[in-house]
Order: sequence, then structure tokens, then C-alpha cells
Amino acid sequence: MVRWEPDAAGRLMRAAVELFAEHGVEATTVAAIAERAGVTERTFFRYYSDKREVLFGDRAQFASLFIDGVRDAPVDASPLDAVAAGLHAAVEFFPAGHRADSRVRGTVIAANPGLQERELLKMAAVAEGMAEALRERGVTEPAATIAARSGIAVFSSAFAAWLSEGETREMAQLVDDGLNELRAIGAG
Amino acid sequence: MVRWEPDAAGRLMRAAVELFAEHGVEATTVAAIAERAGVTERTFFRYYSDKREVLFGDRAQFASLFIDGVRDAPVDASPLDAVAAGLHAAVEFFPAGHRADSRVRGTVIAANPGLQERELLKMAAVAEGMAEALRERGVTEPAATIAARSGIAVFSSAFAAWLSEGETREMAQLVDDGLNELRAIGAG
Repeated sequence: MVRWEPDAAGRLMRAAVELFAEHGVEATTVAAIAERAGVTERTFFRYYSDKREVLFGDRAQFASLFIDGVRDAPVDASPLDAVAAGLHAAVEFFPAGHRADSRVRGTVIAANPGLQERELLKMAAVAEGMAEALRERGVTEPAATIAARSGIAVFSSAFAAWLSEGETREMAQLVDDGLNELRAIGAG
Repeated sequence: MVRWEPDAAGRLMRAAVELFAEHGVEATTVAAIAERAGVTERTFFRYYSDKREVLFGDRAQFASLFIDGVRDAPVDASPLDAVAAGLHAAVEFFPAGHRADSRVRGTVIAANPGLQERELLKMAAVAEGMAEALRERGVTEPAATIAARSGIAVFSSAFAAWLSEGETREMAQLVDDGLNELRAIGAG
């Protein structure tokens, strides 16, 4: 039986977040996630290696938003402006309509040190990809790595703020505010 | 039998680095590390939870160098100057005499993704400790987290350069050069 599965990866992520929030990560099975998403376990494993990995979505696709944003920045952009272009390209991953789901996901991750580590490692990989894209633009070391990692520090802080209760600014604004903080820090 | 063990933790680290470089991480046992360091396995486990952990030394002691450096910075120091004080306080951990051993350790870690992840997580924990010390100094978010993480980006880049073949600058100089890069990045 061939079945059309619109956004199966996205539905699996939403199902996993709901079940983790309801029952905890340990008590939730791949079978339960697949059932709630309306797909087979086999489909689950086509997208994700284990139940925890669902929370981190398609890592390569996520990283490529940042990296392509850096690559596509104007040729005369400064390293920080190229990084800013990468961060803004990734903002599309976090539309206002996903804020409530993202908050639940954030709560699940915050309660589990192993998941916090996966999140850190995911963002470290994005930073390394951006540093490589900066080097391709002719930025030398250590400037490329420092600019990319500082940019990811800005992005992660913006994301944490976006998830916090009472925060109404959108990601694009929070990223810009963070970039201004980084400039102010550098200016002493 | 009571035996005086001068710097057992340090001797265990050097023994582990040697054995990992000679035989690989998988083939090296805790018993072999303890034997080369001249201590018992029981002593090994008083210091470290597993054979890989030896490569990361005393995490709390390492982090406290950075954190105390931030805390002890002059009261009117800017966030970046306080971070710089933390990085320079930690430089004592990397004297010129340890460069050869550190290079071997770096080679072992670079060859093993799991160890690279532990190193990243170790430095992420240091960054969080420095961010907390900045908040205690009255620095608000997101500036505290961005300054601390950018500082750790500088430090990690300096450390990677320090380990690279042909690099003759000492850690203190490499850290200062990286801080100047960070300032230049912020200035655009």
C-alpha cells in the first residue's frame, strides 16, 4: 500500500512532543509516536534513528538554512553581517504559529540533561558549518570560528527568550536585539 | 597500606593520554591506566567515573578558574573585560611545559567524535558558569550569555591554535589575539 504522507516528519515531531509532555520521555514508545502521527513504525525509522532524535528534526536541513544564508550574503558583507544573514535565514524555521509547540518541546528538553546535550551539539554543528562557509568567503581563522560561534550564542539566546513566558517579540526581532548586544559587547 | 600519591589525578591523565595514543581508546583498560600511573584501580575511580573521563580532568576545578576570574575582575570592568579576566585566569592551566602532552591529548580527542562531544559539553558548562558570574555582577540577559559564550569561542579557538603544529605563541597571547578578533567582529 502506497500512502501519501504530507509532512510525516513534522507530524512525528508534534506527536512526540505531545507524548513526551504527557507521559515523559522514558514511558513513550516509538510505536505510540508513530500511531499518534498516523504512520507506521517503519516510516518513523525512515526519518529518525530513535525516539529522542525526533525532537531535533532534520539536522541537515536545519543547518543548511544557516549555512546557505552565510553563503548568499552580499560579497562585501563583513563576517558579522554574513553571520547575521545566516541567522535571519534560519528564522523561517520558527514562525509565530509554532511558538506554543516549541515551548512544550523546550520544556521537555529542559527537564532532561541528555536532551540538553543533544541540543547543544546540534547548535555546535551549525556553528562549525557557518565557520566553514565564512572560510569559503575568505574569512581567516580564528575570526571565522569566533564569528560563527558568537552568532550561534546570539541565536540560542534569542530562541530561549522566544520560548519564555510573557515574551512577545518575534524571533527576527530577538535575533537583531542579540546582534546589537554582541556589537555592544565588542565595543566594550 | 597508606601511600602518598602526589598529583595522582595528573599522573592518571598523563598515563591515559599515553596509552590512548599508543593503543587507542577502546583497547586501553582502566587497569592499564592505573598501573602506568602507579596507583590502584580503586584510586582511579576515586578521581574519574570512566577511562574516557580522565581526558577531561577535574571539570569543577577547571571551570572555577574561569568563574573566579570573572568574579574577581574590577567592579567597573565591562562584560567583555570581565570575561577576558576569566580566560586569562584559566591560562595557568596551560603552561608551555604541558604543550606536548596537550597535543597528544588533542590528537586522541580529534580522532573520536564521542570525546569531541565531551569536550564541547565541558566548555559549554564553563560558559554557563561564566554567564552566571556575569549576572551576579549585574550584567543582564542576553548580554551575559552572549558575552560568556563568545569568550569561550575565543578560548577554544586559542586552545586549538596552541595545539597546532608550528604555532609558537603562548596561550595568553593567543587569547588576547582572539579577544581582539572578537572586538573587530563586533565593530563590523
